[in-house]
Amino acid sequence: MAEATCTAAVNIAVVKYWGKRDTSLILPTNSSLSVTLSQDHLRSLTSAQVIEGAASSQDRLWLNGVEEEIQQGGRTERCLSEMRALRKQIEDKDSSLPKLSTSPVHIASENNFPTAAGLASSASGLSALIATLSSLYALEANGISVSDLSRIARQGSGSACRSMFGGFVVWEMGQKADGSDSVAVQVAPREHWPTMQALILVVSDHKKGTSSTSGMQRTVATSELLQHRIKHVVPARMARMEKAIQAKDFDAFALETMTDSNQFHAVCLDTEPPIFYMNDVSKAIIALTVEINRISKQTENRLKVAYTFDAGPNAVLYAEEEDVKDVLEIVLRYFPQARGFEDPFGLKPVAKDTLPEGFNDKVIPVFENGSVSRIIHTEVGDGPRVLSKGESLLGADGLPKSLKA
Amino acid sequence: MAEATCTAAVNIAVVKYWGKRDTSLILPTNSSLSVTLSQDHLRSLTSAQVIEGAASSQDRLWLNGVEEEIQQGGRTERCLSEMRALRKQIEDKDSSLPKLSTSPVHIASENNFPTAAGLASSASGLSALIATLSSLYALEANGISVSDLSRIARQGSGSACRSMFGGFVVWEMGQKADGSDSVAVQVAPREHWPTMQALILVVSDHKKGTSSTSGMQRTVATSELLQHRIKHVVPARMARMEKAIQAKDFDAFALETMTDSNQFHAVCLDTEPPIFYMNDVSKAIIALTVEINRISKQTENRLKVAYTFDAGPNAVLYAEEEDVKDVLEIVLRYFPQARGFEDPFGLKPVAKDTLPEGFNDKVIPVFENGSVSRIIHTEVGDGPRVLSKGESLLGADGLPKSLKA
Repeated sequence: MAEATCTAAVNIAVVKYWGKRDTSLILPTNSSLSVTLSQDHLRSLTSAQVIEGAASSQDRLWLNGVEEEIQQGGRTERCLSEMRALRKQIEDKDSSLPKLSTSPVHIASENNFPTAAGLASSASGLSALIATLSSLYALEANGISVSDLSRIARQGSGSACRSMFGGFVVWEMGQKADGSDSVAVQVAPREHWPTMQALILVVSDHKKGTSSTSGMQRTVATSELLQHRIKHVVPARMARMEKAIQAKDFDAFALETMTDSNQFHAVCLDTEPPIFYMNDVSKAIIALTVEINRISKQTENRLKVAYTFDAGPNAVLYAEEEDVKDVLEIVLRYFPQARGFEDPFGLKPVAKDTLPEGFNDKVIPVFENGSVSRIIHTEVGDGPRVLSKGESLLGADGLPKSLKA
Repeated sequence: MAEATCTAAVNIAVVKYWGKRDTSLILPTNSSLSVTLSQDHLRSLTSAQVIEGAASSQDRLWLNGVEEEIQQGGRTERCLSEMRALRKQIEDKDSSLPKLSTSPVHIASENNFPTAAGLASSASGLSALIATLSSLYALEANGISVSDLSRIARQGSGSACRSMFGGFVVWEMGQKADGSDSVAVQVAPREHWPTMQALILVVSDHKKGTSSTSGMQRTVATSELLQHRIKHVVPARMARMEKAIQAKDFDAFALETMTDSNQFHAVCLDTEPPIFYMNDVSKAIIALTVEINRISKQTENRLKVAYTFDAGPNAVLYAEEEDVKDVLEIVLRYFPQARGFEDPFGLKPVAKDTLPEGFNDKVIPVFENGSVSRIIHTEVGDGPRVLSKGESLLGADGLPKSLKA
């Protein structure tokens, strides 16, 4: 029985993707760059099985144990059909291979982080799907490159293409109308800069924000500033960001990261009607970060931390390993955690009592428990991982094991 | 004894001024356009006296009853000396005139709105000063135009130049290095569109924001988007806005007003470090406004209200007279007023119980008392007014009457 199980990671952009030039193929209006985070802490796990001569004659999908309809013409269906087409080419060349491309598949996928955390799971989910199907169909073994696969992941969920690689990854916007050159490329593997760590500050929000899919197209339609960003700002920033990563220059990396996050939210605000993703807690996290950097600039002539915000109020803070505990303890002072904070790196951080000399302790008020509802400490990670058969989510009957539990 | 007393109004820009090309002369990086509000509700009142052969040999200034130092080289001193220079020219031409230009002046100024309301008082304050000195020195009577005076008010506080006129006023950015063509010009008097009214929603904020003087120069120094706004967006918007005003086209006026407010805050966010003036309450006011317009667009194919935010969390809503009660009652439903709301136009508004059909009543939550701490209902107003001697703030002894009270 042909079966495969893979995991894939979340990625957090430091040069943001916002705007499609082709909404069906998911072709972006600008290139973007992200850091793939570790699958040890946040990951999607996906299993796929080819159902041969089975009772079931159609593809089936379970997300977090709940069956979902695979919509005709939808993104999952598009990914499946693109992956089957690649398998078909290989089968056509080598008639000894099993004819998997014509059989239905069953797919089960789970995230190890709650959707309620407000973390976008589509990037890790879709890249885990593509990695799993690639493994199932032996595509990489037959010469299909990861960038080729990223082209298909992109059609499932734009930024998913970047999770097809570990480390530091560019999504080249490409120029062609068919999207064949709109693919992910690795700038540097995680081993190049393994000390890059991240703190995800999950910010509670009572209201549902604008979905990124509809939000970005409203920006494309109405923001004059977006056009300037696309044409004049991003190309130069991409070059500077790649250089900063190659040189492991944290100051340059941090400055570009923060400036790009600000500009992304600026074009959201320049949308009609305006889109707001950051709330007052998000803004307080920025003010705290600015103060941490002001002091470290003064005393050590360097930056210690970079903030970035995606299409929601959560903050992601990037920092070098040696600075994370310090940053974390200042964060814990202002954003107390009701249940404490268990650090997976064994840092044992405690809310900072004594702030650095000159630090303006009134920069933001001490917030209520729960304003930051959860903190996740992770680091730069690798690309999709192939797991052993024993870790499959699907049983021998082709159904999720969880259904019987 | 030469003496004069004038009042001048607050103005609220609908195309925003943000950025100076000359910080000393206060020359802006783009033209702007504002509505002068009524002095019946918000005004600065200023009295000036020439102290001839007096014990006091220097200029003195009292703001809201407290004496302030007139700093050498400061903005008040600059305005005084420019006004004296104009007086001197007139005296030189007509030797029969009293030599007021060489004598010290005493100035007292008061606002009828609390500073705590977070309303910028510099525009009304500086234009009241210039109007008062012009009256004291008989400048307009001797051929000095209001635009000439606005050039001097501009040097006291940029946007003060726009309060030198009533109605709808452009501040032309000008091109010359000496600022002689950076003056205010009236687009239309209040009588042209007298039904234009405004609601000021005073939003509480615990933290002090970035001052506009330092904030705008940080934006000039660091925002790439500002350059695009200045060169490519504002010139076209100014033309559209003037046209909307000439045609009394509220829909066009509202759309340009809201879009420009959003873009002003977008370039603030695109600043390093970013500047935030709007808070979560401000954003809720925007969401409510968008919903009001969505419904009126659906049912009557028109917009009912326009929001705009200056360098702070307060909202100013523009609406036509016929729509104000409706807008106000929806605002009161979501932002209850602890002490009720006394409407100076006699509208007797009550928090709306039944919303229009199709209105999403969950668009924002009902906020706590005090989230909007005060509502001011006013309308488009006239330019500076000359008051009678009896209304002077200064006594016969040249000191503020309030000091003896």
